[in-house]
Amino acid sequence: MKTTILINCPDQAGIIYAVTGFIQKKGGNVIYLDQHVDKQANVFFMRLESDFNGKAEFSISSFRTEFVKAIAVPYHMKCSIYTDDMVPKMALFVSKYNHCLYDLLSRYKSGELQVDIPFIISNHSDLGDIAEQFSIPFYHIPVTKETKSKAEEKQLNLLKEQQVDFLVLARYMQIVSEKIVNHYPNKIINIHHSFLPAFVGAKPYHAAFERGVKIIGATSHYITEDLDAGPIIEQDVTTVSHSHTINDFIAKGRDLEKIVLARAVKLHLQRKTMVYNNKTVIFA
Amino acid sequence: MKTTILINCPDQAGIIYAVTGFIQKKGGNVIYLDQHVDKQANVFFMRLESDFNGKAEFSISSFRTEFVKAIAVPYHMKCSIYTDDMVPKMALFVSKYNHCLYDLLSRYKSGELQVDIPFIISNHSDLGDIAEQFSIPFYHIPVTKETKSKAEEKQLNLLKEQQVDFLVLARYMQIVSEKIVNHYPNKIINIHHSFLPAFVGAKPYHAAFERGVKIIGATSHYITEDLDAGPIIEQDVTTVSHSHTINDFIAKGRDLEKIVLARAVKLHLQRKTMVYNNKTVIFA
Amino acid sequence: MKTTILINCPDQAGIIYAVTGFIQKKGGNVIYLDQHVDKQANVFFMRLESDFNGKAEFSISSFRTEFVKAIAVPYHMKCSIYTDDMVPKMALFVSKYNHCLYDLLSRYKSGELQVDIPFIISNHSDLGDIAEQFSIPFYHIPVTKETKSKAEEKQLNLLKEQQVDFLVLARYMQIVSEKIVNHYPNKIINIHHSFLPAFVGAKPYHAAFERGVKIIGATSHYITEDLDAGPIIEQDVTTVSHSHTINDFIAKGRDLEKIVLARAVKLHLQRKTMVYNNKTVIFA
Amino acid sequence: MKTTILINCPDQAGIIYAVTGFIQKKGGNVIYLDQHVDKQANVFFMRLESDFNGKAEFSISSFRTEFVKAIAVPYHMKCSIYTDDMVPKMALFVSKYNHCLYDLLSRYKSGELQVDIPFIISNHSDLGDIAEQFSIPFYHIPVTKETKSKAEEKQLNLLKEQQVDFLVLARYMQIVSEKIVNHYPNKIINIHHSFLPAFVGAKPYHAAFERGVKIIGATSHYITEDLDAGPIIEQDVTTVSHSHTINDFIAKGRDLEKIVLARAVKLHLQRKTMVYNNKTVIFA
Repeated sequence: MKTTILINCPDQAGIIYAVTGFIQKKGGNVIYLDQHVDKQANVFFMRLESDFNGKAEFSISSFRTEFVKAIAVPYHMKCSIYTDDMVPKMALFVSKYNHCLYDLLSRYKSGELQVDIPFIISNHSDLGDIAEQFSIPFYHIPVTKETKSKAEEKQLNLLKEQQVDFLVLARYMQIVSEKIVNHYPNKIINIHHSFLPAFVGAKPYHAAFERGVKIIGATSHYITEDLDAGPIIEQDVTTVSHSHTINDFIAKGRDLEKIVLARAVKLHLQRKTMVYNNKTVIFA
Repeated sequence: MKTTILINCPDQAGIIYAVTGFIQKKGGNVIYLDQHVDKQANVFFMRLESDFNGKAEFSISSFRTEFVKAIAVPYHMKCSIYTDDMVPKMALFVSKYNHCLYDLLSRYKSGELQVDIPFIISNHSDLGDIAEQFSIPFYHIPVTKETKSKAEEKQLNLLKEQQVDFLVLARYMQIVSEKIVNHYPNKIINIHHSFLPAFVGAKPYHAAFERGVKIIGATSHYITEDLDAGPIIEQDVTTVSHSHTINDFIAKGRDLEKIVLARAVKLHLQRKTMVYNNKTVIFA
Repeated sequence: MKTTILINCPDQAGIIYAVTGFIQKKGGNVIYLDQHVDKQANVFFMRLESDFNGKAEFSISSFRTEFVKAIAVPYHMKCSIYTDDMVPKMALFVSKYNHCLYDLLSRYKSGELQVDIPFIISNHSDLGDIAEQFSIPFYHIPVTKETKSKAEEKQLNLLKEQQVDFLVLARYMQIVSEKIVNHYPNKIINIHHSFLPAFVGAKPYHAAFERGVKIIGATSHYITEDLDAGPIIEQDVTTVSHSHTINDFIAKGRDLEKIVLARAVKLHLQRKTMVYNNKTVIFA
Repeated sequence: MKTTILINCPDQAGIIYAVTGFIQKKGGNVIYLDQHVDKQANVFFMRLESDFNGKAEFSISSFRTEFVKAIAVPYHMKCSIYTDDMVPKMALFVSKYNHCLYDLLSRYKSGELQVDIPFIISNHSDLGDIAEQFSIPFYHIPVTKETKSKAEEKQLNLLKEQQVDFLVLARYMQIVSEKIVNHYPNKIINIHHSFLPAFVGAKPYHAAFERGVKIIGATSHYITEDLDAGPIIEQDVTTVSHSHTINDFIAKGRDLEKIVLARAVKLHLQRKTMVYNNKTVIFA
């Protein structure tokens, strides 16, 4: 059994010593440790992988209880503890663009992503064929100004029914409202097709083209209530020139979006992301 | 003798044929041709290098006159014609940061930049030693709110006296007013320490740090009346992570600024930049 | 009707003038022109797109005949002339890795690649399901040392039957012999999982790991008789560190391979590649 | 007082706990910890920064003695312990190219590099002026086949006299022989103007040009007895195309070389590099 522990707490002396001592006492071996101190906020972050292979009788729930009592409470920690046999459930939200969907499903089918995908939700029916091609249930839930609230209730019901752990908006061209965001804090991953904070909002490639930039980008971030302003997980860029049309920007951007979203999803799946003060700590 | 011709005009059939025919008739050989059509604006751009080595008696002024009459006027062209023996004069404006200054002067001394540098202007005296180290005249012209207008007059006088062709603001931490901008349209190159249009204005590294971006950038652009909104010549980026402090951003950014500004200066010197509709065409 | 003309010939004065004059006489309008002179080899290259929309009665075959007679012969040109209604036929060769196959088929289904894919050939049966998923005929042709010659005959027969224009080896883990290479000179695109010429041959990720490089790459090139030594079309790289295992190298490399191969295939499809002296001229 | 400890030892349980416990007992606070396990070699690496500000009477020599006795010996560690008031001495070796020299000296003068530079050695006199410009002693020690051995003795004497800690070959176009390499194991930083292991040896830009690569690189590495085969510290690349001449490769490469060498020197100065099995662990 392998565990991954994510911690943040007020910075103070002796944390690493205390945590590694606890692991050792419980028969584990630390196989990876990364830490970070946010000096402005005076917050300590740590990610720690431990191996309990020697201990046949290891119980994650009693480990958790004891860790909280012995370490987390005295050090005022927020902590999350995972074992490597937990496979998270990821819901995909899409609209009409298929490149991110194809990319994620190909990675999923290849075994590259250790995840379950209980369903795909879309406000359009266009990508139903791809869902079928990959044998994933597909729910077409149209969204109009009038039906948005009801549509989101349907979405929430599906999410709860399937006990979904996190959502990925793979070019889902709708704004997700508070109702859903509040249920999944730092658990909704979006891909925005610009180098944020440049070109927030709709039609970023058109805006980039108008501005005459020489580099375009894509940004994957956790959704918060503020549009395109959530904590950034991953960004990447590519060069453009005067010779590229808007359609060239869009085509080049598609490749960026695929890669950047896939990287963010992987980081999230591997419990390598922590959020604090609207920023991420990425222990990559 | 080698000539470089830069052209823009309304797009229409037969331009390339007409221009290359003219060169041929005048005894030249086209050794490089690059063209671009801005389809939105319906404007044709071309950069053309020709070799007149075979023609001992080549006169640039009569070539210019005839080209304008035979080609530029009928096709409603704006054109600029240069010969390779013209060495432009570049004035450097600096404040307190020395990295861009050191970089440009090193390139200049190494013969990498085909340019004359008649002087360096600064609102602070700090970098006078470097100017001396490289034997370039240095003018310390302090700028306060009250003295700005007079200071700019002094600057303009120096620029005119020395018949300066273009200005490079190598981290000159002052806003250059219309008075100067209007004298040097698309001839003042600035380096902004962000990936524009993200983080316009002061303290972009601090803003980038606050936003939690994973990539920072630098942008070189021609100065216009609107702050940090002029035509972009060159941009580049580098990755950052949660582990980097603001000082790390600044240190990484310095290397970007140096490279991006040097590239922009070279492109300008080689007459590879054209400006249209607040965007650049870069025939690199 | 739009035509694309690719030319190479000994460098000499007046070529652009002659070609653009011919286009004009035939009622076409040059909408794109890019040229290059290889000064070592004294060879001139040009790519030219022309629009003959005004000319309803445009015939590509008579255009070709006249171009050859009037231009290509006197200038000793090699030239290829295409119209935009020609859709090339691409055969895919794969083994067991699916990432490049998924990527190319997704782009194909999305309409991103203007190409026909008559079939997929593999020496293993593993990827037959994906072929079926995308409704492409799949031929399983096993290859052993003993059967290689017969297997390649089968392959050649299929290629001829379907009048295939070019081949893409999408991680086809076999060496293609002269028999096939000679039938498709500069028409077989391979993806090699290293930054060539570093790490030629088998297991380049393992070799890169052993050497302790800080950057890994992928290279797409035309196949020649010399292993991994053909003309390079496209390369890209990504950073790695001591913290990455060989499996991390392989996973990061997959994303490179997909992108680099897809870019090379697109450049080939858009007739933007020319080969000379085992190097490519890419008019991108 | 701040200390930096670099450790490597056979991988075993409890190392982090033991080391952090020792720091705590001595009154220090761990402010940074990064670790790595090379699973092939079964070696554990750690870099640890501690703050002893609270302890006025902190003595580095007794700390070192106690650490070795209590921790290093029982765990079979190799360890290096530094305090932040130690400023290393760096000798620069150059030939005729000035770009890396200018870059390093500019950074040094700006206070970017916390280092002393007792002298510059060159086999040519060309760069003496730059040394003078920056007020650094310059020794012109010509090297021919016949005089090489004597020249290296002179170099060694200078190095010993000044108690130089490490050497930087800033485009020193000579092969440094074993005599010197053995005195400074993993303490001689070289910049090679290719993406190693591609294009080992002389004239890598020419070789890259001949091969028709689309990306060129630079590599900084520690010198070993095998030419261009030592542990790689840092690499970077830039794109090239058919339109670039060899001189363009060289010019683009200069910017790479400067940046890559400067990064490597900084990593070394900050004690962020460890060498094992001809590879580096870089705790950046």
